[in-house]
Formats: sequence, C-alpha cells, structure tokens
Amino acid sequence: MASSTLKPSEKWSLLVAAGASLAVIANTFQGDGAPLVASLAFSTLAFSMTYAFVRWSGPAFVKAGLKGRDMSKIMPKEIPEAMGAVAAAVYILSLMAFIPFAFYKDIVAATSGGGNRDVVLTITEVETGRFLHRFPHSKLSSYQSALNTLQATTILGICDDLLDLRWRHKFFIPAVASLPLLIVYYVDFGVTSVVVPNFLVPYMPNQARLVNLSLFYYLYMSALSIFAPNSINILAGVNGIEVGQSLVIAGLLVLNSALYLVPFPGNPVLNHAYATRPHPATDGHLMTLYILLPFLAVSTALYIHNRYPARVFVGDTYCYVAGMTFAVVAIMAHFSKTLLLLLIPQIANFIYSTPQLFHLIPCPRHRLPKFNARTGLLEPSVTPWPPERPPSKPLTTIFLLLEKLHLIQVTVDPKTNCISSTSNLTIINLWLVWRGPMREDQLTRELLIMQTCCGFLGLFVRHTMALLIFSADNRGKVSSV
Amino acid sequence: MASSTLKPSEKWSLLVAAGASLAVIANTFQGDGAPLVASLAFSTLAFSMTYAFVRWSGPAFVKAGLKGRDMSKIMPKEIPEAMGAVAAAVYILSLMAFIPFAFYKDIVAATSGGGNRDVVLTITEVETGRFLHRFPHSKLSSYQSALNTLQATTILGICDDLLDLRWRHKFFIPAVASLPLLIVYYVDFGVTSVVVPNFLVPYMPNQARLVNLSLFYYLYMSALSIFAPNSINILAGVNGIEVGQSLVIAGLLVLNSALYLVPFPGNPVLNHAYATRPHPATDGHLMTLYILLPFLAVSTALYIHNRYPARVFVGDTYCYVAGMTFAVVAIMAHFSKTLLLLLIPQIANFIYSTPQLFHLIPCPRHRLPKFNARTGLLEPSVTPWPPERPPSKPLTTIFLLLEKLHLIQVTVDPKTNCISSTSNLTIINLWLVWRGPMREDQLTRELLIMQTCCGFLGLFVRHTMALLIFSADNRGKVSSV
Repeated sequence: MASSTLKPSEKWSLLVAAGASLAVIANTFQGDGAPLVASLAFSTLAFSMTYAFVRWSGPAFVKAGLKGRDMSKIMPKEIPEAMGAVAAAVYILSLMAFIPFAFYKDIVAATSGGGNRDVVLTITEVETGRFLHRFPHSKLSSYQSALNTLQATTILGICDDLLDLRWRHKFFIPAVASLPLLIVYYVDFGVTSVVVPNFLVPYMPNQARLVNLSLFYYLYMSALSIFAPNSINILAGVNGIEVGQSLVIAGLLVLNSALYLVPFPGNPVLNHAYATRPHPATDGHLMTLYILLPFLAVSTALYIHNRYPARVFVGDTYCYVAGMTFAVVAIMAHFSKTLLLLLIPQIANFIYSTPQLFHLIPCPRHRLPKFNARTGLLEPSVTPWPPERPPSKPLTTIFLLLEKLHLIQVTVDPKTNCISSTSNLTIINLWLVWRGPMREDQLTRELLIMQTCCGFLGLFVRHTMALLIFSADNRGKVSSV
Repeated sequence: MASSTLKPSEKWSLLVAAGASLAVIANTFQGDGAPLVASLAFSTLAFSMTYAFVRWSGPAFVKAGLKGRDMSKIMPKEIPEAMGAVAAAVYILSLMAFIPFAFYKDIVAATSGGGNRDVVLTITEVETGRFLHRFPHSKLSSYQSALNTLQATTILGICDDLLDLRWRHKFFIPAVASLPLLIVYYVDFGVTSVVVPNFLVPYMPNQARLVNLSLFYYLYMSALSIFAPNSINILAGVNGIEVGQSLVIAGLLVLNSALYLVPFPGNPVLNHAYATRPHPATDGHLMTLYILLPFLAVSTALYIHNRYPARVFVGDTYCYVAGMTFAVVAIMAHFSKTLLLLLIPQIANFIYSTPQLFHLIPCPRHRLPKFNARTGLLEPSVTPWPPERPPSKPLTTIFLLLEKLHLIQVTVDPKTNCISSTSNLTIINLWLVWRGPMREDQLTRELLIMQTCCGFLGLFVRHTMALLIFSADNRGKVSSV
C-alpha cells in the first residue's frame, strides 16, 4: 500500500501555502474587505488541508472497510475508496468559514447601526453600485441554501458509498437535496420566465419576448440537479476521470463568470450598454466564484491522489457533490443553459448509455474498460450475448447498423453467425472503439482534452451566438441564459 | 439477529400514520397556512419513516461493518451500530421539506407582489402582530443556518462513527459546525448583552442593568455548542440512555416554549404586561417547536429500537445531533440559561468525569457499568489500581474521603492495605453505587426519572425565581434568559 505520510518537501510546501493563506485572510479584514482575495486564500488553505487529510486518512478508510481494488493494473492492490468524502468535508468547512468574509462589508455596514436590523437594497442600488456591491440580506440566505444543498448531497453521498444504495433510491436523492435551493430561489427571485429566441417571437401569442414557465421552470431546475450529479457519476471508471472532468467543467465555469467581472476592452460579454458599469449579473457571478474556487482547490488536491496510477478512489460522494456544485451555481446565477453546453460529453454519455441504464439491453454491474494484462492497455469492455440467447432480429439489425456508423463494437460468432458480444455503451468504451486500445493515463488525457474542447466550443457558442438568437444578453434577474 | 422486516401490524400502523400526515400537510396550504399543524404532521411522517428505515437498514449497516456487541447481555449478539445516522438523515430531510410550510404565509405575501423583493418587518409590527406573525426574511436565514449547523454536525458525526476519530479531534468538531449559526446570530441579532441580576446592579458601573459581553458572548455560545453534544455523548453506555435523556430534555424544552405560546389564564410566563398580546419571544419559541417536534418524533422511533433489550445502537452521530439541536434552539430563541438548567445531570456527569476525561487518573476505553452474568444485574465498573502502582498518598486520602461522602466506590486490598480499585467516574456508576446492582432496564428508567425531575425543578426555578433575580422576564431581543 502507498505511504500515508507526507514527504518532507510536501509537508513544508503545504505548511507554507497554509501559512500564507492565513496571513492573507487575516489581512482582508479592513476597508471594504476583499472577498475575492479571501476566497482565493481560503481555496489555497482548502487545497493544503485536502491534500494532507486525503493522505493521512487513507488507513482509517481502509480499516473502516472503504477500500477497493484497481482492476486496470497488473497487480491490483487495495486502495482507499470514497476519499471524495474528505474533499467534500473540507470544501463545506471552507465555504462555512468563508461566510463572514463574503459578507464582511455588509456586516460592517449593518452592525454599525446596532440592534435588530434589516439590510434592504433596491434593484437600482444593486445595478448601479460599485464593482463589489453590498450583499443584501437575501444573498446570505442564498449562500446558506447553497451550503444546505451541498451538505445534504454530501450526507446522501456518504450513505451511498457506505450502504451501496440501489439505483432507484439513488436517482432521486439529488432532487431532495436541491429542495432548500429551489425554495430560496422561489422566495428570493421567483423568476421563471425565459427569453424567447428571436426566430420564435413572431409565433408567440402577442409576440411575447418572455415566456413564463412557472412550475415547469422548477421541474427543470430539479431535473438539472438530478442530472448533473448522476451524469458525472456514470462517466467514471478510469483513474482520474471523475475528478478530471469536474476540474475542466469548474475551470470553464470560472472562466465564464470571470468574463462578466473583468471589464477588459472588447470583452464580448459586456456589450456597449454596460461598458461603463458592472454587468447586472455581477453579484451572481461573484457568488459563483466564491463557490467554485474552493471546489477547484479541493478537487485539484484529490486529483493528484486519484490520477493514474490512482492511490485513492473518489467514490460517489465526490461525483454527487461535484455535479450538485455545478447545478447550484447555475441555478443561483441563472446560467443553466450555459452549464448544459459545458456538460455536452456527459449528456452524450447519458443518451448513449440509456439502452443499458434502462435495461433495454443487458447491463453488467461495471462497464469500465477491460484491462489486457498482456499488453498493459485498456480495451472496450463488452456485454456477452450467450449463444442460447442471442440478440433478437431487430436488435441485431440495429447493432450492425451502429457498427457501420462506428458507434459500437460488435463480435460475430463465425459458427452460429450470431452476435456474440457488443461493447458496453459508455463514451469511454466508444473512445477506445474509435482510437484503439491505449494506456489508462493516455485515455484519461484524451477524454479530458475532448471535454475541454467541447467546453470551449460551448462557451464560444454561448457568448457569440446567443445575441443572434436572443434579443438581449443575460439581463440579471430578467432573463436566464 | 433480530428481524429486519416490519410486522404486518407495524406496517399498517405506519402506513396509516404516514397517509394521515400527508393528508394533513396537503390541507395546510390554505389561508395563512397552519405551520404548527404542518409541523406536527411532518413529525408524524418522520416518525413513521425513521421507524421503518431503522428496521430495514439494519442489515446494510452490519454489512458495512457498523455493528457492535451488547456486552451487558448474557448472550452478547451483534447488532447494528450508528443507527442514529438514519434518524438524523430523516430529521434533516423533514426540516428541509418543512421550509415552505414554515414560511407559507410569508411566501404568499411576498410573491403576490412579483419580481425581486425584500420582506421587511419592523420591530413594532412583530411585537404587536397577530398570534402567528409573518416571518421576516431574516428568519429564513436563521432557519437555514440552523439546518446548516445540524447537517455539519451530522456529517462530522458520521465521520466519527466511521473512522473513530480521536478525542482531541472530536472535541472541537461541534464548534466548527456551529459557525453558520453564530454568524447568522451576529448578522441578525447581534445582541450580546445579558441582564444583570438585581442584587448585583448596585455594584455595576452607573448601576447598569444590562452588561454587554460582546466577544465573550460568542465564546459562550460556541462553548455551549461544544458542551451540549459532548455532554450527551459521555452520559452513555446503557440501553436507551442516550435517546432517553434527549427525549426528556427535548420534551421539557417543548413544554417551556409552549408556555410562551399558550395564553391560558394565570400563565406564569405571560405576566400582566403582556397578558393581552403575544409574548415578544413568540417567534423564537415557535421556531423552537418547528425544530424540536420532528426531533422528538425521530428520537421516539429510534428509542423504540434502542431501549432495553437494544436491537440497535445509536452511535455518536445521534448524540452530537441531539446536543446540537438543543444548542441551536437555545441560541436562536435566547434561552441558553434555561437549557443549562435542563442539562444539570449532564453538567454533573461532566464535572464528576473530569478527573478521568483529563487523565488525572487512569481512564479505561469504556466506562459503562459491568454486567454480572451470574446475577444478570449491572454493577459499577471499576478502574483497577495494580499493586505495583497504587494511587499516591494524597490521591488515596481524596478517594477515601469521597467514599465517606458516598461519591465513589473504593476497594482496599487487605494484604497491602492499598486501594486496589475505584469505581469509574460517571453518574451512571455512581447511581449503581448508591442504589446497588440492578437490571439494565431498571437503571435506565431510574436515570430518566431523575433527569425528568431535575428538569422540572429547573423549569420551576426558571419561571418562578427568575423575576426575583432579574428585573424583567425574557424581553425578546433585549435580554437573554
């Protein structure tokens, strides 16, 4: 088993990073506070803590029975499982500790009056305020509800890792966990109108440019918070892929939010109407950064331990918390469609997987690629069709058609002329069908590059084409792009 | 092992209870809503769910290694451990699902205006309002922070149950978990003044009747949230005692809050100044009921499984969540001193335990009473003092003095004339020293009766004597009794 202690160089680097973060954090308690700087410092601290805790707590996890064998290695050894729970716990603690910093300016302003008080900011103040606005009281409520949703996801994820819940129980877990967020959304914003694409406006009653989805908008947000965690959980099985994809998505979301905050010349997001003052969605995107930066930090620390050759497994807790983090920021800052553009590989994987997920065709317990011990390479894993129960006639036709389209690998038994096996329906296997057997680290790298390219394409579409389709860009509370 | 299925009679009773609760819940969505009725219905539902889930999930817990042997039985059998996590999860889910009901009236009032809004209630409106007030927006924030604190406690409790954290890690865990609550307290109330007892007023500078503790008040609240969970966790080791004491305390807290809400003639809490309108602390005590009623429900369901002869153990998660629930309501509704009066047995147990907790004298891993298999009775467990290392001279004097005061059981080796063993320092052992060996169920019963009597005495002192010591009773935001 790998060592559970830190090397001296690691120990000193982490101590220096943690010390520097604490110094920076202590210095943000002046003037208006510097929440973004404090957030960066907290993220550095969270990175150091996750890195050390993941290393130290390995033996305790193994002792508690949370361990697994890495089957894609020549000598499968037992490594700790469900270590994402450590990352999630540090993540939540740092989000909690950050509360006074996020609201420092507000607290100072609010408490200087003394007694019981309510901070009220009208829309005008928010829209015309300075770069870092005061947070109105309802923002604290939003932040707390985001925290509640993430904590509930963590608890339910730990239950899953521990008790191995069944699919039908797991599937709706995130919907329950997202309740606090949806309720606060209802109370705080209650905006359920979406902007109608220009080309559809002539066909709307009264040529309406906004359509109110009311209850359906809540169902849509609920569906998003079910989909995001589960979609990351099923694009898994190769060292580093769960954390890697989450890092890519979180990084692109940070980039997207930064576009709303940095007023560089020619910033495509800030069109001329807003060029001289902050974008109205600033608050939401600042909050997004506060939530995503520590997530990026703990994920990076976890990735270092989970990448090829993995020293720990991350477990369901991590996948759920990662997906829910994306759903939370997308709902809070109104960019759920942008998030869906970044989740294109996950959506493709989900659609491609449906025949197996819904048991239209047999689905083995694990669908991760098959390790060929002779070559040391990964190959697509297959579902065998025994000779006595071959696929039906129509199914055979479909399989052979899909093989022609290079969307599946099919083996035909030369004796019976029947299909004897088909590759499992995940885009990881599909990638191996396309690109041939490869080493595990190479596979993860290529998949992450693919995820990154899809994401950049998505952001490009979002920021250049949106104005062609919609008449106005993200107008804060009004539209939800 | 005990059955993990429900008997038909149990199944039907639970189904009827759950169905009736759902019907009641559906009917509270009219008029002003009926949050207290909805809370009772949610509690009934939570009871049914906990009862069924605790029964069903037993085998999964045992399979995950969460199991233990009950050493106080003739045939110690393995039963599921840490089942309090199930109760805690149901508790949290029901608190979450209750949010729209607690704020139904507020939501209706708030959303009828449409768009982005802030509900503002001035102090006057709150104090002179009707019996069920509108909840201002900051109340939602308080509720969310209570939920965050309880969830964090649950996560850290599960970690403890799973990984067996060390004392020095465990001790401060609740302080971190209470952060969200303290921060919201700071933003929402910020009241850190306490009323000075009448007899001390002449000695105060300017004869002040209020003294501002500022930072120390936060340290005090933080200490309370460390003490309450840990004090319940160390008064443990007999079937049903952890849940039993929590039920007694929660029941008495509900009674205490009900005294502020029910305007019966001659209600000692509502003195003549408030007789015609609600007590100013109404809001806080309503919130207390919303938090305590589902807690009572899940605890009762757990108690039925944990009472003698125990079919499940509750684990640290339950003790932490129970203690934190008390700390949360005491901080939110400003009755921390009342809570301390109800925790007198826990305080006594803690003080009595300190010599062992702080390792001034040896402390064995477990200090639960010793089961005498011959008589079937529990006897005080002892710490042996080996002949080669007897207690020092001063320690021997103290032990013999304590024995004279009936505060400890001492065995003297007749050969060496040295102390060979002393009873372990918990009030459970002390009770056995006083009352002699007894059956486990009898011991739990007597301890719970003692807890109830102490509690009633505490409430009596609180509501009759407080006015003798302080010049005004709980004036909502101003004093904190």
